[in-house]
Amino acid sequence: MSSSDIFIGETIGTAILILLGGGVCAAVTLKRSKARNAGWLAITFGWGFAVLTGAYLAGGVSGAHLNPAVTLGLAIQGGTAWGDVPLYLASQLLGAMIGAVLVYAVYYGQFHAHLTDPEIVGTKSADEGMVDQTAAPKAGPVLGIFSTGPEIRNGVQNVVTEIIATVVLVLAILTQGLNNEGNGLGTLGALITALVVVGIGLSLGGPTGYAINPVRDLGPRIVHAVLPLPNKGGSDWGYAWVPIVGPLIGGALAGGLYNLAFA
Amino acid sequence: MSSSDIFIGETIGTAILILLGGGVCAAVTLKRSKARNAGWLAITFGWGFAVLTGAYLAGGVSGAHLNPAVTLGLAIQGGTAWGDVPLYLASQLLGAMIGAVLVYAVYYGQFHAHLTDPEIVGTKSADEGMVDQTAAPKAGPVLGIFSTGPEIRNGVQNVVTEIIATVVLVLAILTQGLNNEGNGLGTLGALITALVVVGIGLSLGGPTGYAINPVRDLGPRIVHAVLPLPNKGGSDWGYAWVPIVGPLIGGALAGGLYNLAFA
Amino acid sequence: MSSSDIFIGETIGTAILILLGGGVCAAVTLKRSKARNAGWLAITFGWGFAVLTGAYLAGGVSGAHLNPAVTLGLAIQGGTAWGDVPLYLASQLLGAMIGAVLVYAVYYGQFHAHLTDPEIVGTKSADEGMVDQTAAPKAGPVLGIFSTGPEIRNGVQNVVTEIIATVVLVLAILTQGLNNEGNGLGTLGALITALVVVGIGLSLGGPTGYAINPVRDLGPRIVHAVLPLPNKGGSDWGYAWVPIVGPLIGGALAGGLYNLAFA
Amino acid sequence: MSSSDIFIGETIGTAILILLGGGVCAAVTLKRSKARNAGWLAITFGWGFAVLTGAYLAGGVSGAHLNPAVTLGLAIQGGTAWGDVPLYLASQLLGAMIGAVLVYAVYYGQFHAHLTDPEIVGTKSADEGMVDQTAAPKAGPVLGIFSTGPEIRNGVQNVVTEIIATVVLVLAILTQGLNNEGNGLGTLGALITALVVVGIGLSLGGPTGYAINPVRDLGPRIVHAVLPLPNKGGSDWGYAWVPIVGPLIGGALAGGLYNLAFA
Repeated sequence: MSSSDIFIGETIGTAILILLGGGVCAAVTLKRSKARNAGWLAITFGWGFAVLTGAYLAGGVSGAHLNPAVTLGLAIQGGTAWGDVPLYLASQLLGAMIGAVLVYAVYYGQFHAHLTDPEIVGTKSADEGMVDQTAAPKAGPVLGIFSTGPEIRNGVQNVVTEIIATVVLVLAILTQGLNNEGNGLGTLGALITALVVVGIGLSLGGPTGYAINPVRDLGPRIVHAVLPLPNKGGSDWGYAWVPIVGPLIGGALAGGLYNLAFA
Repeated sequence: MSSSDIFIGETIGTAILILLGGGVCAAVTLKRSKARNAGWLAITFGWGFAVLTGAYLAGGVSGAHLNPAVTLGLAIQGGTAWGDVPLYLASQLLGAMIGAVLVYAVYYGQFHAHLTDPEIVGTKSADEGMVDQTAAPKAGPVLGIFSTGPEIRNGVQNVVTEIIATVVLVLAILTQGLNNEGNGLGTLGALITALVVVGIGLSLGGPTGYAINPVRDLGPRIVHAVLPLPNKGGSDWGYAWVPIVGPLIGGALAGGLYNLAFA
Repeated sequence: MSSSDIFIGETIGTAILILLGGGVCAAVTLKRSKARNAGWLAITFGWGFAVLTGAYLAGGVSGAHLNPAVTLGLAIQGGTAWGDVPLYLASQLLGAMIGAVLVYAVYYGQFHAHLTDPEIVGTKSADEGMVDQTAAPKAGPVLGIFSTGPEIRNGVQNVVTEIIATVVLVLAILTQGLNNEGNGLGTLGALITALVVVGIGLSLGGPTGYAINPVRDLGPRIVHAVLPLPNKGGSDWGYAWVPIVGPLIGGALAGGLYNLAFA
Repeated sequence: MSSSDIFIGETIGTAILILLGGGVCAAVTLKRSKARNAGWLAITFGWGFAVLTGAYLAGGVSGAHLNPAVTLGLAIQGGTAWGDVPLYLASQLLGAMIGAVLVYAVYYGQFHAHLTDPEIVGTKSADEGMVDQTAAPKAGPVLGIFSTGPEIRNGVQNVVTEIIATVVLVLAILTQGLNNEGNGLGTLGALITALVVVGIGLSLGGPTGYAINPVRDLGPRIVHAVLPLPNKGGSDWGYAWVPIVGPLIGGALAGGLYNLAFA
């Protein structure tokens, strides 16, 4: 696979993953969106079909990793050359940032209506008197459209949750070659992976919002920090390490487990 | 592909796309429908399976574009001859109008029960005193079953939203040939495209209702203007250019991006 | 295809179609069911996966028509011999009746809890004073688990709705051979057909509950009339002709349209 | 198939099945989960995609039975050697227990927040005065995340429900070889089986919560009994025989019916 194929496939594919994934979070969160309050099933299917679209689009170009944890798992398994890993990761991060900017472009009017609404922005000070010590520090009112955050903030617990969820994802991708399809993420493989991601969201997303992908969290968090959104609040950098470290450990464990048990 | 194949496939396929797509909007909107208030997930899956049915049915006949933005993207990519484009577009528009009339036939009783219900029709005058300047002008109470409309009316914003959503759709269709399926919209391609459309709806549909297809909006809007529905209200022609211009720009951009990056 | 293959495939396949299809109606309707009030999306996906299961199971045996409207359409198209039609229809009706009895067996406790609940059964007399002339006559409180009924009772309207919905179903099945799969309902064909049925339910099911299959309605209606359920109310035989006549006309129209336009 | 393949595939595959299946029950049940109250559709899709992930992952290794009822049906049909059955079953039970422990690890914080919440734990004594004789004995407040339980407790009824639901599942798996895919659970077979399980859940899950798999119930029930959860309540061992006996009878019936009708 040529460097330009990796760059193009991973950048465009990850941009579309985050455009659609961040998009569904915007859709159900923001005022003046037709999909407001569409619920958890809408979010999980939205992210799953975001994976489908990005993977389908980039599958024939770069193999559609779209996720450093997948790249790491494939490198350990031997399916991806270690020398290609830095370019994969850089392209994925760039793509994730582009995707987050595109979410902002699509929902520009809704972002501004939401963040200038006194009911939305006013709740911050109103709540201040009754802080729950174990709860996450009050993140900005639209940060959840960009990055993940835990329901119960505990670094070790949150990392464990992300590790386990990522092992499931990466192991499912690595075992594709064992089925009747040959190697590479074919069309059917993209569909299965997408539905596995819906499943991971439904089943394991409750505690941390299932980043399971370092750039899916870091890229949009950087964009949140930079975008000139009114009343946007903090970007919660204190949590940012969890959805990087957890998925990377998970990807590595999946690669090792594959070599041990399935190879 | 013969002219009669294009005409038959695109007319029947687009008619079924709009019959099922408009149908789900009728189903969740109208009084005395078993599906009333079934929610945004029902609408997005309904439109996705509308694409599936139309594309599956017409795929082997005309290639199942069913959408001028797709035809334009394929013409730029080189997959469709420019000389065939006018016939594709005319057949799609005709099909979309037929589909909208069929929605009316299926929901005839519900349309009349809804539009003669004092609670439904009476809200128009009751609201008149508290107009929101940035809101869309009051569209007729069933126009949303036929055409799209924005939550926040702003031509530039709305066009940008439609462009981005359409780029995602058309790029996903153009890259099909890169996967292991060979060219043409095979059965699995129809399924993937349908689920991509569900994803676009869930993720990018919040601001404008995702026309992403000029005839999907224009055809039913013409039918709305013509049908003898009681108390139907205006057809909001002031917005009609957005879901034509946005998707066409999006289709062209996707074709250009494909040639630049993927070809 | 041998007579015993037709008999076995159609009887077992249709029994499973109705077991799962009627089952989801029982699941969302009856008291003391975990799925109570799960909503329209649950019903439409439930029926769709009922089709998937029945069609997948019987596909390799009898071709999995499971529906006289499909058999009629295939006979007109030429895919099924006219001499086999009576056996297909008889097996389908038998299977549908077996399926309805199985629904009763699965939900035995729930049926009895529901039908002996004063809140449920008592509503009948309480409502009697405020009859809506255009509404359907009060059907028994569990008839909807067995058979379809209209929201607005009007023979012509209801038949038109059923015809259009059935044309979509049968045309989608008939055009399968045009795609890359060869003839016969392969695995992927069963999946597509199932999702088309979900789509028809979401989009066209609002007025009449989408029978789109004569035996799906008649078989369980006979079982409802015969089963010794307490307080079950009438079986609404006055409506029984609509979901027989509408789908048969729809299946015939789809066969004719196929021969005219697609053959 | 080698013993180590069976052991690895069934243990890991069943662990992932229960991790995701139990996970979705935790997700919708526990306080401080983002998915709380996501509804029955979320539960049924969650279990379906749990099957998909486990079956896809283990399909190429052990054939992905993941269920003693499936193993029994396949042994009767002849697709699995009787000598391999004990290893299949032991691996499945071990995997199910590992999966349940992993659910606890993922939702550790949520379990403890839930079980120390006075509102949740307090309801037990408050309800004690008004016991419903036909209702299930008060199970522990999180037992439903581990094991199934009936809405109406009646051994015969509950076994009948589980038998019928399991026959549908196992028959669908056994007839796969009749379709165009050859033998073995290929990629598409895993997808179809997953959606069949969604369908069984939607349609037949109302009375007993559709165990349809002895180890899916027994493994997590053992883990519930052993885990040091505060205020966890009883493990309802009086019901434990139903989701073992029912599915085993169902699997055997499906194997026999296959040999009689389809072979």
